[in-house]
Amino acid sequence: MKGAIGVDIGGINSVVGLVDEDGNIVKELSVSTKKYPHTTDYQAYVTALSDAIKDILDGVGQKYDIEGVGIGAPNANYHRGTIEHPANLWRYADDDELRSQNRIFNLCDDLHSQLPMLYKFAITNDANAAAMGEMVFGNAKGLSDFAMITLGTGLGSGIISNGEMVIGHDGFAGEFGHVIVERGGRECGCGKRGCLECYVSATGIRRTAFEFMANSNLDSPLRDISFRELDSFTIYKLAESGDKLSQDIFTATGEALGRALADLVATTSPSAIFLFGGLAKSGELIFAPARRAMEENLMASAKGNVEILESGIADRNIAVLGAASLVMV
Amino acid sequence: MKGAIGVDIGGINSVVGLVDEDGNIVKELSVSTKKYPHTTDYQAYVTALSDAIKDILDGVGQKYDIEGVGIGAPNANYHRGTIEHPANLWRYADDDELRSQNRIFNLCDDLHSQLPMLYKFAITNDANAAAMGEMVFGNAKGLSDFAMITLGTGLGSGIISNGEMVIGHDGFAGEFGHVIVERGGRECGCGKRGCLECYVSATGIRRTAFEFMANSNLDSPLRDISFRELDSFTIYKLAESGDKLSQDIFTATGEALGRALADLVATTSPSAIFLFGGLAKSGELIFAPARRAMEENLMASAKGNVEILESGIADRNIAVLGAASLVMV
Repeated sequence: MKGAIGVDIGGINSVVGLVDEDGNIVKELSVSTKKYPHTTDYQAYVTALSDAIKDILDGVGQKYDIEGVGIGAPNANYHRGTIEHPANLWRYADDDELRSQNRIFNLCDDLHSQLPMLYKFAITNDANAAAMGEMVFGNAKGLSDFAMITLGTGLGSGIISNGEMVIGHDGFAGEFGHVIVERGGRECGCGKRGCLECYVSATGIRRTAFEFMANSNLDSPLRDISFRELDSFTIYKLAESGDKLSQDIFTATGEALGRALADLVATTSPSAIFLFGGLAKSGELIFAPARRAMEENLMASAKGNVEILESGIADRNIAVLGAASLVMV
Repeated sequence: MKGAIGVDIGGINSVVGLVDEDGNIVKELSVSTKKYPHTTDYQAYVTALSDAIKDILDGVGQKYDIEGVGIGAPNANYHRGTIEHPANLWRYADDDELRSQNRIFNLCDDLHSQLPMLYKFAITNDANAAAMGEMVFGNAKGLSDFAMITLGTGLGSGIISNGEMVIGHDGFAGEFGHVIVERGGRECGCGKRGCLECYVSATGIRRTAFEFMANSNLDSPLRDISFRELDSFTIYKLAESGDKLSQDIFTATGEALGRALADLVATTSPSAIFLFGGLAKSGELIFAPARRAMEENLMASAKGNVEILESGIADRNIAVLGAASLVMV
């Protein structure tokens, strides 16, 4: 049976998994990422990651026909097989001399050097990997034009067109979280203002909660919680339990998403848009207003033709599955 | 030498051209479109078009190795080879019975029946065809990720990703003129409000002129011209001659375009965006504010990496070249 290694690189941990062609994660190992915090620790991290992969290959991996390693990581450049200037990985130590160095990490090549028995290596960002995972193992099987929206701390996106990832000339397409939906609006971590992810994400809905508490007189248990303490799950639980203000906050968040998705449809015309991540688990609280607002803002030719759907692999490790799928197709 | 037939279908005339592999239009014929106004005239139109193509094939076409016919047309569906529900082609006559018919025209198949000696037939909308023409014959040679924006009465777009057209599941991607840039803004012909083309197009800049005359006290020769009389070329000539209000109108138009292009870059990450059409001929009056506003709204990773450029085939018949290029690659 065919298999592939999927690697999900996070700031704290990296997960290495052997995925079979049916999308089962046969074996999973964890490698600390935070143990290798600095630019100078990068080579040691590559060795630790390679060792974990070799462990799998030498163990249960012997039963599978494995061609390569797919990686999902922040700031990944698919074209070059690199991770470039990551904010939270392999940072500079407090040594000014190092700052002159280019923080571009040739992870695909460096892994290949240590794993010469494999020959396919690919890397992309989490949302692109999730989109590929959805196509290979999830609800997007057979679709050639769709989009994946990942709703976490921020908003990520992966766009598939003609059955291929839209990667962009520099490998950094799919930053749909940073289209501007309110000119001069909320300050974004990216340095701009009014980006979609300032409104539609776990942090965005929290900001909306505070805007709504400022603008309305509706009472709500939300008013007892500080900004730092509030999280999106609390707003969800309150909305579920009937709190009107929390329900309004979800409606506004879903509508902001739906309006933006109508623009995405005008641009790339997907047949379906999959939502994944924390906010997507809120079900109709977010799906219903998103569908309604999208539909209202679609051109006549697109009305009724685009579905907003749940990810089909939300219950499994989409990051590892998505990464593995990069070298499975 | 290789060649291809390019057909540009407009509401008044259709132009049929033989294009050689260097992008020269060797021979050009015109077929009236308006002579065949109704749904029931469509088959006669197909025959007239086929006859024009046969004339070319039997004449100078004998010197070329010609494989097919590429067509640029409104409401074209690349996937199905059809023109679907066109607003200005083959309309219903005043006969209610006909209205129950499906206005889907299988132009590729119908041409193929009359031209069995050819075997490649493709159709897409004007802006997609222009993008392909730019890639095959113009300034986008060698680029695999770019966008073409056509500025005419409306705003059309063609997006190339991984060297292929982004067509969308239904064949209708690239409607970037209908992303919403002002929520609740100007009424668009498409039925929505605040679409980009209500601000950035020949009609959009005219609307902006009237908004600026309403909002400002600046004197200008524009104040002697009625809405119906004003065209974008007049605003251009006035701006060129130093009229401050006309210059401000161009600046606002370019800025609106630049802001929207920053969103397109976040989504699909092209290396270049080509502008084509009437407004694009206004040179730096539109390019300078567009570049500045786009740059201001790009994410850090994209700043300085995306060019806004003139089309390289603006002086030739881009519609016929673009159409021919569909069957040349």
